[in-house]
Amino acid sequence: MSLVNEKLKLENIRSALIRQEDTIIFNFLERAQFPRNEKVYKSGKEGCLNLENYDGSFLNYLLHEEEKVYALVRRYASPEEYPFTDNLPEPILPKFSGKFPLHPNNVNVNSEILEYYINEIVPKISSPGDDFDNYGSTVVCDIRCLQSLSRRIHYGKFVAEAKYLANPEKYKKLILARDIKGIENEIVDAAQEERVLKRLHYKALNYGRDAADPTKPSDRINADCVASIYKDYVIPMTKKVEVDYLLARLL
Amino acid sequence: MSLVNEKLKLENIRSALIRQEDTIIFNFLERAQFPRNEKVYKSGKEGCLNLENYDGSFLNYLLHEEEKVYALVRRYASPEEYPFTDNLPEPILPKFSGKFPLHPNNVNVNSEILEYYINEIVPKISSPGDDFDNYGSTVVCDIRCLQSLSRRIHYGKFVAEAKYLANPEKYKKLILARDIKGIENEIVDAAQEERVLKRLHYKALNYGRDAADPTKPSDRINADCVASIYKDYVIPMTKKVEVDYLLARLL
Repeated sequence: MSLVNEKLKLENIRSALIRQEDTIIFNFLERAQFPRNEKVYKSGKEGCLNLENYDGSFLNYLLHEEEKVYALVRRYASPEEYPFTDNLPEPILPKFSGKFPLHPNNVNVNSEILEYYINEIVPKISSPGDDFDNYGSTVVCDIRCLQSLSRRIHYGKFVAEAKYLANPEKYKKLILARDIKGIENEIVDAAQEERVLKRLHYKALNYGRDAADPTKPSDRINADCVASIYKDYVIPMTKKVEVDYLLARLL
Repeated sequence: MSLVNEKLKLENIRSALIRQEDTIIFNFLERAQFPRNEKVYKSGKEGCLNLENYDGSFLNYLLHEEEKVYALVRRYASPEEYPFTDNLPEPILPKFSGKFPLHPNNVNVNSEILEYYINEIVPKISSPGDDFDNYGSTVVCDIRCLQSLSRRIHYGKFVAEAKYLANPEKYKKLILARDIKGIENEIVDAAQEERVLKRLHYKALNYGRDAADPTKPSDRINADCVASIYKDYVIPMTKKVEVDYLLARLL
């Protein structure tokens, strides 16, 4: 069986999504070690960088530097990874083997993810405060959180493609009619969403626990808060990606 | 109380070490998703890079690129972080506040860590195989494993400094006599080591578990194997760093 089919098997997509939950929770836990450190997100004089030819935030600066490195190893040639910044170099590794498993598309919601992360997620997972000595570590954690969230949300393209291939005629009709509500109804799976939220809650509780005294409840990150970030943002945003991908599926 | 004293309080050192265990185990779990991919560790024609002016391995190439970015945000000005590569740029952030908490020293065992990681750890945590499409992801995981191991092992400097400050006269005598065996006997804590290994085993079992069926034993990484990497390598190597640091403590 070809690589394309493997990547689009619903069972493989599901296990990739489950695996990505672990990464997201763990990245949140790592970020939660440091205080809010708001200055790393501010531009210009309100920020913490003092560079001659750069006016953006420290986070944006480091995101771009990191993405340049990742672009070299063809991360953004993968159907699973989307950059937050522009002007990235060409890969130094040869092209991926196998066929690109998705329909060509330009769906990229990273600017929305970045804004939501800074304004909604950081205040929830970190405590108020400013620790100048940990600005670098903070931003390294931020980048990992952003990358894992972006990967998870854009994985909606695989879900959408798999669902489309399972029933192309039904989807074609909805797409041609630009029936967004109809597409949403088609792709939603409420029972599955409930399972995801329950599992996330269990994992956040479990990974955040103090191994020296595992009977104590987790105090490093709030499990309800992790589940609510999924419920309020990750799941709806994944749905948006699925819909946007499908709307462009026949182009 | 000054930053120096806080960083050198044995209770704070211990909680930093416990926290770092989580990061190491989680990084191992991430690496374990991919097969061995030996080509990423080989140089020249045996490797997977085909660059005109570079003959090293893909891992070494990306390590250097990543460390250039991290050097910009002054990671290696921190007493907790040591680079694997040379020729790194100057930081763009201002100097850290507070006094450097360690005695000036050049102890850096990263070349040994790199070799042990490639030859002993990778074969233990990954399954045999080659997956060209995941070379980039593999090496990104490798770098995170290496960085977290390096940080943990070099944290021995904090342990050594704290122990030295608690009893300078006794250590001075041993250091001046170059009594390595005597220093080793002084810094060892067998009961504490047992606690570390037990805790690690518990965490590896717990983080590796399948949340869909938590009663099943962990199948993503072997908990005995994680504990044995600590017992056979991380703990002895940390001791070596402690001894090397102390031997240079009076210079």
